[in-house]
Amino acid sequence: MRVAVVGAGAVGRSVAELAGDYGHEVVGVADSAGAVVDGVAREGRREDEAGVDVAAAFDRKARTGSVGEASVESLLSGPYDVLVEATPTTLGDAQPGFGHARRALERDRHVVLANKGPVAERYDDLQELVADSAGELRFDATVAGAIPAVATVDSMGPERVEAVRGVLNGTANFVLSRMAAEGLGYEHVLAEAQELGVAESDPSFDVEGTDAALKCVILANVLRGGGVTLSDADVAGITDLPPSALSLAAEDGRTVRLIGEVTDDGVHVGPRLVPADDPLAVSGTRNVVQLETTDAGQMELSGRGAGGPETASAVLADVDRLAAE
Amino acid sequence: MRVAVVGAGAVGRSVAELAGDYGHEVVGVADSAGAVVDGVAREGRREDEAGVDVAAAFDRKARTGSVGEASVESLLSGPYDVLVEATPTTLGDAQPGFGHARRALERDRHVVLANKGPVAERYDDLQELVADSAGELRFDATVAGAIPAVATVDSMGPERVEAVRGVLNGTANFVLSRMAAEGLGYEHVLAEAQELGVAESDPSFDVEGTDAALKCVILANVLRGGGVTLSDADVAGITDLPPSALSLAAEDGRTVRLIGEVTDDGVHVGPRLVPADDPLAVSGTRNVVQLETTDAGQMELSGRGAGGPETASAVLADVDRLAAE
Repeated sequence: MRVAVVGAGAVGRSVAELAGDYGHEVVGVADSAGAVVDGVAREGRREDEAGVDVAAAFDRKARTGSVGEASVESLLSGPYDVLVEATPTTLGDAQPGFGHARRALERDRHVVLANKGPVAERYDDLQELVADSAGELRFDATVAGAIPAVATVDSMGPERVEAVRGVLNGTANFVLSRMAAEGLGYEHVLAEAQELGVAESDPSFDVEGTDAALKCVILANVLRGGGVTLSDADVAGITDLPPSALSLAAEDGRTVRLIGEVTDDGVHVGPRLVPADDPLAVSGTRNVVQLETTDAGQMELSGRGAGGPETASAVLADVDRLAAE
Repeated sequence: MRVAVVGAGAVGRSVAELAGDYGHEVVGVADSAGAVVDGVAREGRREDEAGVDVAAAFDRKARTGSVGEASVESLLSGPYDVLVEATPTTLGDAQPGFGHARRALERDRHVVLANKGPVAERYDDLQELVADSAGELRFDATVAGAIPAVATVDSMGPERVEAVRGVLNGTANFVLSRMAAEGLGYEHVLAEAQELGVAESDPSFDVEGTDAALKCVILANVLRGGGVTLSDADVAGITDLPPSALSLAAEDGRTVRLIGEVTDDGVHVGPRLVPADDPLAVSGTRNVVQLETTDAGQMELSGRGAGGPETASAVLADVDRLAAE
C-alpha cells in the first residue's frame, strides 16, 4: 500500500521508518512545518525509486526543523492508499487530525489513526464520513499502543464484550508502581519519571486520567457503535493520592492502579484498589486491557502501551488488515 | 454461514448451541455413533425452518447415545459452508479429524478446527489441500481456547514474532498452583483436581506435557510456515516434580510453571522457574501466551484456555472471519 504519514513525532517517524519492512511504500511525510511528497506517479520510474527517502527526510528535519518544503496540502491531495494520522491528540473539535482524516475519506482513501482525538471526540462524525466513502477507518493504535485491543473486540464481536477494564496509561502506572515499591510520595516519583523520560514536563494529560479516559471513550464507542465523547466520562487522576493509601493497600495484599472502565454504567477512570496478584496489577509502564465476554469469560491483553515502534507496529497491523481486504 | 459440526463433546455441543447467536445456521451435527443433518436444501422451505433442531439433537443424544440416525457420511457430503471439526485430538495420522477436514477442503468448503491433531501432526498435508481448495482453514481454537493467539500472530505478521512462550495447559497449571499454594504433593493435588473435574481420569495427556506440546507445535507451524510435528518437540511433564521444588522456588520469590516455548532452538515444554510476579505466572486453570515481537516488545494474552463455550467462542470467531472475507 502507498502510505502517507501526517505527524512526524515518535510514532509518525517509526511508522515511516518501519513501513518498508511491512511491504508498504511511504509516499509522503508531513510535520507541522512542511512535508516531503513523492511527487506525482512518474511514468517509467524504476520500482526502487518509488516513495520518499525517509532517512533523508528525518535528517532534514533534524537540520532544518521540517521534513521538507512541500505543503501538507500537497501531501493530502497527493497519491496514497492510506493516510496515517499521527499528529498530537487534541480535544473538542479534534483538529487538525479530524480534518486530515476527512480529506482522505472524502477522496475514498483509507485512514489509520494513531491520534486519539478524532475517535474519542468525533466518532459519530467520522462514521458518517466512512459511510459515504470507499475508504475505511482503523484505529487500533489509539488504545494501548501495541496491544491489539480493538482488533480483539472486533474479532469477538462488540456485542459479546460486556465490559472493558484496564490500565491504559503507562506514565501513571509507572508512578503508582514506584510509589508502592519505594514508599515515596507522588511529587518525588513524578520528578524521577520526568528525568527518565517516562513523564512529560507537563504530565497533566497522563496523571489526571485524561489520556486513559480517551482510550476508554474510544472502546466505549466501539462497544456501543458510537455516541460517546470525553464529556461523558467520569475521570479522576492520581495527583492527590497519598503514599499512605499505597502502604495501607500493601498491608492488605493489594495495590492501587489507575483503572479505566467501560461498563453499562458508563465510562469511569480513577484510582482503584486491586489485589496484588490480579491481572490488572501490571507494573511499570505496561498496559493491560481486560475484556469481560459473554461466552469466553475474562481475557487480558498486556504489553507496551506506548512508544514509537510499539505504536507504529499497531498502525502497520491496521494497514496490513486494509491491504488484506 | 451454514455450519456443520463433527464431534459432539463439550466443544462441538457449545458450537452448535451458540452458532445461532453468532448469526450462523447449524445444518448438521455428528458424533461417533451417528448424525443429524438438515436433509437436502428443500425448495420453498421457510427461513425459520432452516437448520437442525440443536436442542432436540442433544436431548436425543442423552436418551439414545447419538444425536441422530443419519450417517456421518451424509453430513460430510451434505450442504454446508464451514465444517467445524471438534472430534477428539489424535496423534500420528490425526484421524478421523484429518479425513473430515480433507473431505471438506476437497469440496471447496471452509474448515475450522477445534481438534489439534491435524494442525499439529499433519500441517503440511493440510496446507497442500488448502492450496488446491477454494475453501480456507482456520484453527485459533486449537491453541489456548478462548485466547486469540493465532489471530494475533497473524495480525502482527508471523515473521515479526520471534518467539512464543506460554502456559498452555490449564490442568497442569491448576495442579502446580495448588501444590505451591498448599504445600501438597502431586498425587494428592491430582486426585483433588480429578474430583473437581479439572483433571481427567487419565490425565497423562495434560500432566506429561503432550497437550501443551501440541499447541506449541501448532504455533511453530504458524511462525515457520509448517514442517513441525510433535516428534520435533522436546517434552517433559510435571509428574515427577517434588513439592520441595515449589517451596524452594517460593523462598526465592519464584514459582514453577509448565512452560511451552517456541524459539529458534525449537519447541520445548517443561517445568520452569518463573518469578512470582512474572506475566507467565498465571494461577489456576488460566492460560497465557507471551509473544516476543520485533517491534512491539513482549505482549501477553491470557484467559480461559479450555471449556466448551470458551473454545466455541474461538471457533465461532474463526467462522466470523471466514464470513467477513
